[in-house]
Amino acid sequence: MSEVVFERADGRGRDMMRPVSIQTDFLQSGIAHAVVRFGRTTVLCTASVEESVPSWLRGKGKGWLTAEYAMLPGSGNGRVRRDRGGSVNGRTMEIQRLIGRSARAVCDLERLGERTITLDCDVLEADGGTRTASITGAWVALARAVNGLLASGALASSPLTGQVAAVSVGIVRGEAVLDLPYVEDSAAEVDMNVVMNAERRLVEVQGTAEGMTFSLDELNTLVRLAEGGLGHLFEVQRAALHDCPNLSL
Amino acid sequence: MSEVVFERADGRGRDMMRPVSIQTDFLQSGIAHAVVRFGRTTVLCTASVEESVPSWLRGKGKGWLTAEYAMLPGSGNGRVRRDRGGSVNGRTMEIQRLIGRSARAVCDLERLGERTITLDCDVLEADGGTRTASITGAWVALARAVNGLLASGALASSPLTGQVAAVSVGIVRGEAVLDLPYVEDSAAEVDMNVVMNAERRLVEVQGTAEGMTFSLDELNTLVRLAEGGLGHLFEVQRAALHDCPNLSL
Amino acid sequence: MSEVVFERADGRGRDMMRPVSIQTDFLQSGIAHAVVRFGRTTVLCTASVEESVPSWLRGKGKGWLTAEYAMLPGSGNGRVRRDRGGSVNGRTMEIQRLIGRSARAVCDLERLGERTITLDCDVLEADGGTRTASITGAWVALARAVNGLLASGALASSPLTGQVAAVSVGIVRGEAVLDLPYVEDSAAEVDMNVVMNAERRLVEVQGTAEGMTFSLDELNTLVRLAEGGLGHLFEVQRAALHDCPNLSL
Amino acid sequence: MSEVVFERADGRGRDMMRPVSIQTDFLQSGIAHAVVRFGRTTVLCTASVEESVPSWLRGKGKGWLTAEYAMLPGSGNGRVRRDRGGSVNGRTMEIQRLIGRSARAVCDLERLGERTITLDCDVLEADGGTRTASITGAWVALARAVNGLLASGALASSPLTGQVAAVSVGIVRGEAVLDLPYVEDSAAEVDMNVVMNAERRLVEVQGTAEGMTFSLDELNTLVRLAEGGLGHLFEVQRAALHDCPNLSL
Amino acid sequence: MSEVVFERADGRGRDMMRPVSIQTDFLQSGIAHAVVRFGRTTVLCTASVEESVPSWLRGKGKGWLTAEYAMLPGSGNGRVRRDRGGSVNGRTMEIQRLIGRSARAVCDLERLGERTITLDCDVLEADGGTRTASITGAWVALARAVNGLLASGALASSPLTGQVAAVSVGIVRGEAVLDLPYVEDSAAEVDMNVVMNAERRLVEVQGTAEGMTFSLDELNTLVRLAEGGLGHLFEVQRAALHDCPNLSL
Amino acid sequence: MSEVVFERADGRGRDMMRPVSIQTDFLQSGIAHAVVRFGRTTVLCTASVEESVPSWLRGKGKGWLTAEYAMLPGSGNGRVRRDRGGSVNGRTMEIQRLIGRSARAVCDLERLGERTITLDCDVLEADGGTRTASITGAWVALARAVNGLLASGALASSPLTGQVAAVSVGIVRGEAVLDLPYVEDSAAEVDMNVVMNAERRLVEVQGTAEGMTFSLDELNTLVRLAEGGLGHLFEVQRAALHDCPNLSL
Repeated sequence: MSEVVFERADGRGRDMMRPVSIQTDFLQSGIAHAVVRFGRTTVLCTASVEESVPSWLRGKGKGWLTAEYAMLPGSGNGRVRRDRGGSVNGRTMEIQRLIGRSARAVCDLERLGERTITLDCDVLEADGGTRTASITGAWVALARAVNGLLASGALASSPLTGQVAAVSVGIVRGEAVLDLPYVEDSAAEVDMNVVMNAERRLVEVQGTAEGMTFSLDELNTLVRLAEGGLGHLFEVQRAALHDCPNLSL
Repeated sequence: MSEVVFERADGRGRDMMRPVSIQTDFLQSGIAHAVVRFGRTTVLCTASVEESVPSWLRGKGKGWLTAEYAMLPGSGNGRVRRDRGGSVNGRTMEIQRLIGRSARAVCDLERLGERTITLDCDVLEADGGTRTASITGAWVALARAVNGLLASGALASSPLTGQVAAVSVGIVRGEAVLDLPYVEDSAAEVDMNVVMNAERRLVEVQGTAEGMTFSLDELNTLVRLAEGGLGHLFEVQRAALHDCPNLSL
Repeated sequence: MSEVVFERADGRGRDMMRPVSIQTDFLQSGIAHAVVRFGRTTVLCTASVEESVPSWLRGKGKGWLTAEYAMLPGSGNGRVRRDRGGSVNGRTMEIQRLIGRSARAVCDLERLGERTITLDCDVLEADGGTRTASITGAWVALARAVNGLLASGALASSPLTGQVAAVSVGIVRGEAVLDLPYVEDSAAEVDMNVVMNAERRLVEVQGTAEGMTFSLDELNTLVRLAEGGLGHLFEVQRAALHDCPNLSL
Repeated sequence: MSEVVFERADGRGRDMMRPVSIQTDFLQSGIAHAVVRFGRTTVLCTASVEESVPSWLRGKGKGWLTAEYAMLPGSGNGRVRRDRGGSVNGRTMEIQRLIGRSARAVCDLERLGERTITLDCDVLEADGGTRTASITGAWVALARAVNGLLASGALASSPLTGQVAAVSVGIVRGEAVLDLPYVEDSAAEVDMNVVMNAERRLVEVQGTAEGMTFSLDELNTLVRLAEGGLGHLFEVQRAALHDCPNLSL
Repeated sequence: MSEVVFERADGRGRDMMRPVSIQTDFLQSGIAHAVVRFGRTTVLCTASVEESVPSWLRGKGKGWLTAEYAMLPGSGNGRVRRDRGGSVNGRTMEIQRLIGRSARAVCDLERLGERTITLDCDVLEADGGTRTASITGAWVALARAVNGLLASGALASSPLTGQVAAVSVGIVRGEAVLDLPYVEDSAAEVDMNVVMNAERRLVEVQGTAEGMTFSLDELNTLVRLAEGGLGHLFEVQRAALHDCPNLSL
Repeated sequence: MSEVVFERADGRGRDMMRPVSIQTDFLQSGIAHAVVRFGRTTVLCTASVEESVPSWLRGKGKGWLTAEYAMLPGSGNGRVRRDRGGSVNGRTMEIQRLIGRSARAVCDLERLGERTITLDCDVLEADGGTRTASITGAWVALARAVNGLLASGALASSPLTGQVAAVSVGIVRGEAVLDLPYVEDSAAEVDMNVVMNAERRLVEVQGTAEGMTFSLDELNTLVRLAEGGLGHLFEVQRAALHDCPNLSL
């Protein structure tokens, strides 16, 4: 589908992902984690397990799965202020709620038992797509935490019901493109995040026109473009779990 | 399209809106406002004009358009706590950011000049669809504020570039339905908010599967269902502006 | 007592109330509420019942009755900021504490049992006297909530020991006047809020001189003026409860 | 007026003040201050002068006079928590607003010029009447600060238009009493704070019935009782300014 | 060691303390307290006993000892803002943590039993050395609280394992000096706080170079200088406990 | 100095550092940074340059150098909560103030000009010594930022006056040891952080006895032990700047 006329900043075809990698031995402490990279965008995702649930869930025999997201001060262009002022920034809130919902879409909370897994996504370097990289990496960290709980016997069977990953698509200068870096993202007329499971069914679609609008046809084109990228992400996720014998993917 | 087999709580067809009304003379102070009702869901939307802009916009010859959203404590089932604890609730944040983006999609901020319009959406009674009713009513309040600025000569031409409205759609027990009340919303497998302009082009699509997933086909069905409801909303909006001679809709 | 020389903005006599009304079917959700109007001042008062008490009261067999007050952003002249910054504004605090004390003055907390009633007073439109309208309307919402608890059998007998209402009085350009709208309130030399029960005994008196002082004689004149207005308010309150057979007023 | 039947905890007559003193050389730094004692109740009042005004007053040629109030942790029965949690306690708010209004009632802000005086009232020991002792002492600190500004030539004439002081009165076991210590205050049926200027005119009256009500006659009795105590306080205040030649009291 | 060449602002020798005093009957409420003065620096230290421990210590049979520190607004040069904005100032945090650690260094928390003692240090007047005066006075307040618990039989034996006091030392214009007032402190090249027990063993050393550095030799000189001053402080502390027969010092 | 009797967890000699490394090409965005590792302790230090100073420094021709410190949630044993609640944790405050002071000790703020450099130290993995690793890495990030400003011509000469680094020392089971990992740190009787410049002069010494005390002799032993480790750190720092031709070290 890549063509001659439209030139992307990094020379990629319109339907190509940036180089994607997931590293799972960056920390030596034994915590389940993944360092995910979509091009220069780098996110450290950790999965912390606590043997308790929030008070509103106590005694219901169910677990909880939640997420927090933050950008490190040196991750962006110009220093990013920490969310310390008492009220967390709206964009941060939206993103961490999205990560949590996406992970819960493939996790059976009853099978998880009365424990909480917190997925922390800390952006070390930001170049567009931090929320989609976070979802993709957080799932790997989650799967590794589940693998650990299975290995220790804390869980008898996996609460994971599938894989979940996400990618951004958008319309830039009239063209639909996959996996936008910052330079494209900030110029995009339409910006969309697509979250899918490995069966290519939608978990979440969020499309926003910035000063423009888009048609239902364009929406379809964008979702199909995302589907292509997600195929690659599901493979990279599985490769990052090759050493997790307790998960059957 | 309504059919026999599937019965909605209020007997509506699957593609029918609840009774919709917009009242613009609820307050006597002269402030531009709209009380919008989608069934029992009732939102008071006001548009406050201030002759200044936030510091990051100063001196750029542009205006600002923003929104705040809140549920009154007595609006829900069980008292809703006020967002007073210093950190605004994540859901509140998401909704007010969505309202703001939707309004800005049909407003030329340069033509608005160095002033700020704040759209406040306060939910008096909540029965599902508070964010879509808010967007729909906020646009009417905005248009009435613009009408006032045109009438007083503060604005020479309208910064409004179109109408914007929103409606919820979802999949409930396997069926696609329009404009979900709380009882349906809380049981929906897929929940989607569609924001469009009067040309039926998309401004924002947010679809979320709650413990389920959905296909691209289902996404298309839902957007088309929303389009039907939005046609009615655009008419109700225009009727609510019949006394605004300065607006050319 | 009204006289020729002194002319009020709205032509009222010095000892006359603005038009007062209390509507109890504004919300359709079934929550006990009252929309009270003193002229243009409009407050939505709701009474939410929770079957628990704050931790410091637990196990004492007593209930709790408290109030919160807020002005909606579009209620005033110029947008009113929401109390979201972590610290609630001093004026708001004072008013909601006053509403709570006034309601507790006519409620037997032991007879209420281990439950909490929260009276939320949200000002939809402000034109002076928002705190006195709030007290007057909140009592109606409270009485309707009690009526509901009696009807459902949750309460065997009413904890209400009487009616409570409030009105403002003040000295404007040397003249004592009743029920001040904003234009008079902001110019008043002395500003007083009088809270009474239906036996015309005082529950609370708060009188403040703004850049002036007042004598004990003037204090007496003002309280007597308030007493006149309160007589009318007690009647309007009772009328708003005509459909509450479980209350014996 | 004191009589045999009614016995106060400390043997005082019903119309007698506790021992009152005001010390003005407790701090050695030169800051205008007063340590005021009403019996065991001890408040350190300081008056800090800053050569600027809050932003909303800038350029209007007027000054500002405000107050803050706090109880030290060791001042009460049981440790009093500091107001550090981001939101200042409602009682604290009410009291410091009352102190500020009372002081402004006897200060011409235009003559003060574009400067701010902050009256800080820190309760070192609390035994009832902390707000009335604070008002009484804060005025002395204010007067001493004004004396300093006159001495240095920063002010040409005094902005003080009079003295202001306050005392509590109440009804305890049916009897009207003056200047209540904690043991009486916590048992009082009616609790009132009376703020007057030296001409015995009222600046503020705040009367609250705790689980009781009171008549207009009782209100009159209480205000007259307060007037007696205030006479003594005005004398003690003047004595505490004997070394301030620039003030003409 | 004092010499001719170097002249201190107040004429003291380099190795001399300012006049030190500790008053223990300033408050009449019976709370254990000490008003400590190092020259003009004056701190009110109170020790509040609560019969509970923080949740993380519950059920472990141990007590807790903690400290809070604050400067009163009128204590400094220029008004000191209260720590009310939700986040306590970094300097305040550091100081109160230091006071707490110092006190815990001489207290056996197991012998204290399941209770909390809070040491509140409120600076009434600040002229350098507020943290060292606070530690010195807080220990006296703590000892007096322990004496009370022994007297009432709440404690069978004292949890105090020794005395603790603190003093500042520094290098000013190249000379090592003891107990710096503000004028020296703000000009010091090296600033050090030394906390010791009565056996002259170190509990805490904090030395900071401001725009300079120091050698290990200078560190030794400073610690020895501090040791001299601390000898005097331990005596003053013991004198302030002459009326505490239950303590064996 | 290492000996047979005393065995450290990782087999190191008492006077040996853990493996130390500093990586300066971890981020690809071009921001000056250093990933410093002391054994498993890993800190990402970035230096952000802003062309403005805080308001209290404006117009004085001086720059500002400050630091922030945080632990990532997955860095510790058990999830570390983010400092989002409005008030930053006391330990965090202390550490970031220490990092800032240490960096300012070797930076001429006048030569820096009216700009702010913020040193952000984010702990990716914590195993003791996070504050000393932060200081050591932050200086490298600072030096690299200065190199960039020299390269671009924004600075004519370097404001750096030297190197600064830090290491922890402590007494564990009676033995003085260098560079404590968490397992030793949590068991240490005395815990000390030593900050020095490359001339081996002290910038800051902070020594704390946890439930013990220490003598002046022991203080000397510890500082000398630190000096040994710091020699190694200064070399590693210089190696990490081999590609910075504009710095003359």
